Amino acid sequence: MRVVMSTSKIWKNSIGAISNIIDEGAFNFSSEGVKMEAMDPSHVAMVDFHISSSAFEEYSVDESTSIGLDLIELNKIISRAGKNDEVILEVSDERDRLNLTFMGASTRRFSIPIIDTAEEEIPSPDLDFTAKAKIQAGVIKDGIKDTSLISDNVNVTLSEEEFKMMSESDTGSAETEVSKKEDVVRNLEVNEPSKAMYNIDYLSDIMKASSSGDFTTVRAGKDIPIQIVFSMADGDAKLEFVLAPRVESE
Amino acid sequence: MRVVMSTSKIWKNSIGAISNIIDEGAFNFSSEGVKMEAMDPSHVAMVDFHISSSAFEEYSVDESTSIGLDLIELNKIISRAGKNDEVILEVSDERDRLNLTFMGASTRRFSIPIIDTAEEEIPSPDLDFTAKAKIQAGVIKDGIKDTSLISDNVNVTLSEEEFKMMSESDTGSAETEVSKKEDVVRNLEVNEPSKAMYNIDYLSDIMKASSSGDFTTVRAGKDIPIQIVFSMADGDAKLEFVLAPRVESE
Amino acid sequence: MRVVMSTSKIWKNSIGAISNIIDEGAFNFSSEGVKMEAMDPSHVAMVDFHISSSAFEEYSVDESTSIGLDLIELNKIISRAGKNDEVILEVSDERDRLNLTFMGASTRRFSIPIIDTAEEEIPSPDLDFTAKAKIQAGVIKDGIKDTSLISDNVNVTLSEEEFKMMSESDTGSAETEVSKKEDVVRNLEVNEPSKAMYNIDYLSDIMKASSSGDFTTVRAGKDIPIQIVFSMADGDAKLEFVLAPRVESE
Repeated sequence: MRVVMSTSKIWKNSIGAISNIIDEGAFNFSSEGVKMEAMDPSHVAMVDFHISSSAFEEYSVDESTSIGLDLIELNKIISRAGKNDEVILEVSDERDRLNLTFMGASTRRFSIPIIDTAEEEIPSPDLDFTAKAKIQAGVIKDGIKDTSLISDNVNVTLSEEEFKMMSESDTGSAETEVSKKEDVVRNLEVNEPSKAMYNIDYLSDIMKASSSGDFTTVRAGKDIPIQIVFSMADGDAKLEFVLAPRVESE
Repeated sequence: MRVVMSTSKIWKNSIGAISNIIDEGAFNFSSEGVKMEAMDPSHVAMVDFHISSSAFEEYSVDESTSIGLDLIELNKIISRAGKNDEVILEVSDERDRLNLTFMGASTRRFSIPIIDTAEEEIPSPDLDFTAKAKIQAGVIKDGIKDTSLISDNVNVTLSEEEFKMMSESDTGSAETEVSKKEDVVRNLEVNEPSKAMYNIDYLSDIMKASSSGDFTTVRAGKDIPIQIVFSMADGDAKLEFVLAPRVESE
Repeated sequence: MRVVMSTSKIWKNSIGAISNIIDEGAFNFSSEGVKMEAMDPSHVAMVDFHISSSAFEEYSVDESTSIGLDLIELNKIISRAGKNDEVILEVSDERDRLNLTFMGASTRRFSIPIIDTAEEEIPSPDLDFTAKAKIQAGVIKDGIKDTSLISDNVNVTLSEEEFKMMSESDTGSAETEVSKKEDVVRNLEVNEPSKAMYNIDYLSDIMKASSSGDFTTVRAGKDIPIQIVFSMADGDAKLEFVLAPRVESE
């Protein structure tokens, strides 16, 4: 197996965000592309990561291969790639290691052990999203920082008029609101307004997959998980998170 | 009560500096403007902050109102304002909260409780300053960093020739000196040279109100408090600190 | 004694790197220039620092003088110099202090005690280097960061084809390799390929003397110390480190 990508950005951003939430996972290389599905240890967040084979400059995968990796270690290594470096992934001859090569002015090679990851059934929840929008990542990141001053949790709502994040506590309240008229909200579609409360730390870790100027697709509903999708490489790569809501103790 | 300012810089810089020194304080909104006077808990520093009503885009204050706030919490919130955000302050209908709104691409609302602040008599010391100058903030900030390598206290002097900051200890000495001929010192007026010793941490916290390129007015005398004044918005806003001298133990 | 240099960069970079490795040392001022030789407390690294008198704007040294200094304190002070500041060093009249003056818009004076440093015989090892190259500092710095993910030690090799840094451990391997064809490697001369293992922390501290774009001369051999030379001020100043190899426990 040998796959080559001409820049490192997809790997850097994706693994950076995933490794904040999930410690280890298995990448499945098949003729169609690379795929990883995993849940975080406390089963609050799910990730579905996919890069189409067409996003690669070279993609030689003869037989489907599952490669379990320590994502924390993988992230440390991927972080070292220069943004214009060519990134080459290969399985070692003994099939016990993943070799990573970053080609720039210098050639940098890393190898990490392939590990057995827990064979965990990843549920495919059938979620009935009732609202959806593309929102500039910077808006959500600002909302996260604003509401984290007040609480550990944030209420996220999509209504026919706007996207809103809100927190309340004894010490005050914080609210970020963007009208659909602003250019930072696009394609707002609402059958029924969504509203649910999420853990701010998880949301913050998820949003690390994007730069402030990027747009991210959000799907949500009433008291159900929220889906946050980052599309990269003109749609050839997709990083999707599903985050479970917090149930307010009453 | 509702007051609107077109940018956030005055609030951000002022509250940033004040909250380093004073934990809570009461803002008095009257027809003339906003005013806050307070002393730090150890009675070493006094702050006198004032924004004229003419510095606001909208200034609706029907009756004079005193609003006590936790300045640490206020600063966390004000820090979140974008520098080009419009800043709106309103008292809630129940008069128990201050509502802050930052208007940019998104609308961000915060609210914090209005608290009872200690009714403290703020002295109006009649200080006989004998020397005065406008000094570029960067010079004072450099002097603070230089002398803090050596001691916790710094001697500040204004003479007919120059502005000087100096520290000494067993481990060495540090001295920053600027001649009145340099453009970073302006309007030097000295009846009698000033000299007194101040705590460096307080001075450092006070100087956080300014950027290095700003000019600040310093008034001083022999072994008396030093007055440091930041003028903003073409004089429509003023942040004044008075810092008591350290008496050298002999 | 009074010596004046028109910028601070040589002092800042050199003392910054030396003080990471060595706590105190004696600067010898003679008619030819300034020289300091020292070993780190664990005798793993040696430094040989020299500035020719011709690198100074003014160089008044009547009789040779040895000035012992706490390099940690010296570095704190030198760090405060602006990069365009003129730097003046003088011995106090009582010969018990070194006075440092940084001349910019403001005049900043520091003084630190002259101390007795341990009279230590610095060995002049006769090293039989078999390979040598000029390598861009950024390449070595990248190699340090890469290999430090894997181990505390790094193998450095110079062969007829390339410069290479490599680490291995149970958790993986990292390797940085630059061909002599790349512009970041110059003047490669190899009689016999060099290979030895060094402590990464020491190497990292040494490389702090340079910016990523600078070139540094490396001389090495098989399992012998490595010599790393930074040339500054068109060769008028030279900072040379010799770092002992680690012997692999077997």
